[in-house]
Amino acid sequence: MNTEDKVLTIGATLFEEFELLDLYGPLEMFTCLKERVEIVTMAERSGPVASSKVSGYADCSFEDSPKLDILLIPGGWGTRKLLSDEKFVDWLRKKANSAQVVASVCTGSLLLGASGLLDGRRATSNKLAWDWTSKVSDKVAWIPQARWVVDGKFYTSAGVSAGMDMSLALIEDIWGANVREEVRIKTEYDWHADPNWDPFATLAGIA
Amino acid sequence: MNTEDKVLTIGATLFEEFELLDLYGPLEMFTCLKERVEIVTMAERSGPVASSKVSGYADCSFEDSPKLDILLIPGGWGTRKLLSDEKFVDWLRKKANSAQVVASVCTGSLLLGASGLLDGRRATSNKLAWDWTSKVSDKVAWIPQARWVVDGKFYTSAGVSAGMDMSLALIEDIWGANVREEVRIKTEYDWHADPNWDPFATLAGIA
Repeated sequence: MNTEDKVLTIGATLFEEFELLDLYGPLEMFTCLKERVEIVTMAERSGPVASSKVSGYADCSFEDSPKLDILLIPGGWGTRKLLSDEKFVDWLRKKANSAQVVASVCTGSLLLGASGLLDGRRATSNKLAWDWTSKVSDKVAWIPQARWVVDGKFYTSAGVSAGMDMSLALIEDIWGANVREEVRIKTEYDWHADPNWDPFATLAGIA
Repeated sequence: MNTEDKVLTIGATLFEEFELLDLYGPLEMFTCLKERVEIVTMAERSGPVASSKVSGYADCSFEDSPKLDILLIPGGWGTRKLLSDEKFVDWLRKKANSAQVVASVCTGSLLLGASGLLDGRRATSNKLAWDWTSKVSDKVAWIPQARWVVDGKFYTSAGVSAGMDMSLALIEDIWGANVREEVRIKTEYDWHADPNWDPFATLAGIA
């Protein structure tokens, strides 16, 4: 991706019962990039969007959202309902097709799986919900032991905290190791640089 | 703290230019506690509150906020302005005095320092802003090398990501190690159980 002369637009997807850290962990890393990015938060309607106990805030509706360079999709309980929401899945497919990078956290990858976008690709997801993951699509090569997986323009991470590790890897892929290191130090984050680091797969009994 | 028969009320403080993960990292850990807690987000006015690039959302105004068991204060660029905002600092002092636990992340501890609440106590803060930290109050025993510090009812953490480590320690202190472990596994978080773990103090040249 040529980033020398371009501010990248990152679109973050919100929906009822999204998981807080799936969204705001990656967004913390991206906000540290300052003038390199613009961030827009999108939901069915602009305004507050309830997670399990705390509301996030969407700047605009899906319909009014701009063309994105990077599309971010969190997971959470709300994904269960969205999997059978054809209007949402259609929007997601179109939005992902026009983005240069699509990044999901936790069960956000199931939405990508349901849309067919991951057919024939490798991907990962939340470890405690693995039984469900493998049932959403049998056309995806789901990887049980991985902190995150990159396949083409698709970055999928394991549960919740893993989104931060994936985001730092994505930042390094786009802007280089020096920028990633600046963000890591500013956020005092103990980055797992190895995408295969995943004790939680073992704890969940799937690896 | 007797938690056997009580739902604890956690109040999260928002202000212009708060740091996203300072707030939503701890709140992720607390939302996992489900029926054990209620969470209220508070700001000068209810509604959206801008961080550097992404808006959070406040359920109620400071004035209308309920009595809290746990008061959470994030840091961020906005703390610089708030330090000289007497009305805010007065509110913070009263709110903290009536809470059972006061937890700050990053430069949030400077607001507590400015209010006099940390006089004679040990505390920590963001590592890249340390020069500034030590100038805010000379009545606080600022600890440069610490992921988090507990002194009485005051939990103060280092920068940004450190708030998640502190929150898991607080959860263990209140609800026990089994509950903390449930939350850690659900969030797939690589918890630093040692409050003295702090490579970022060394990187910042203050330890």
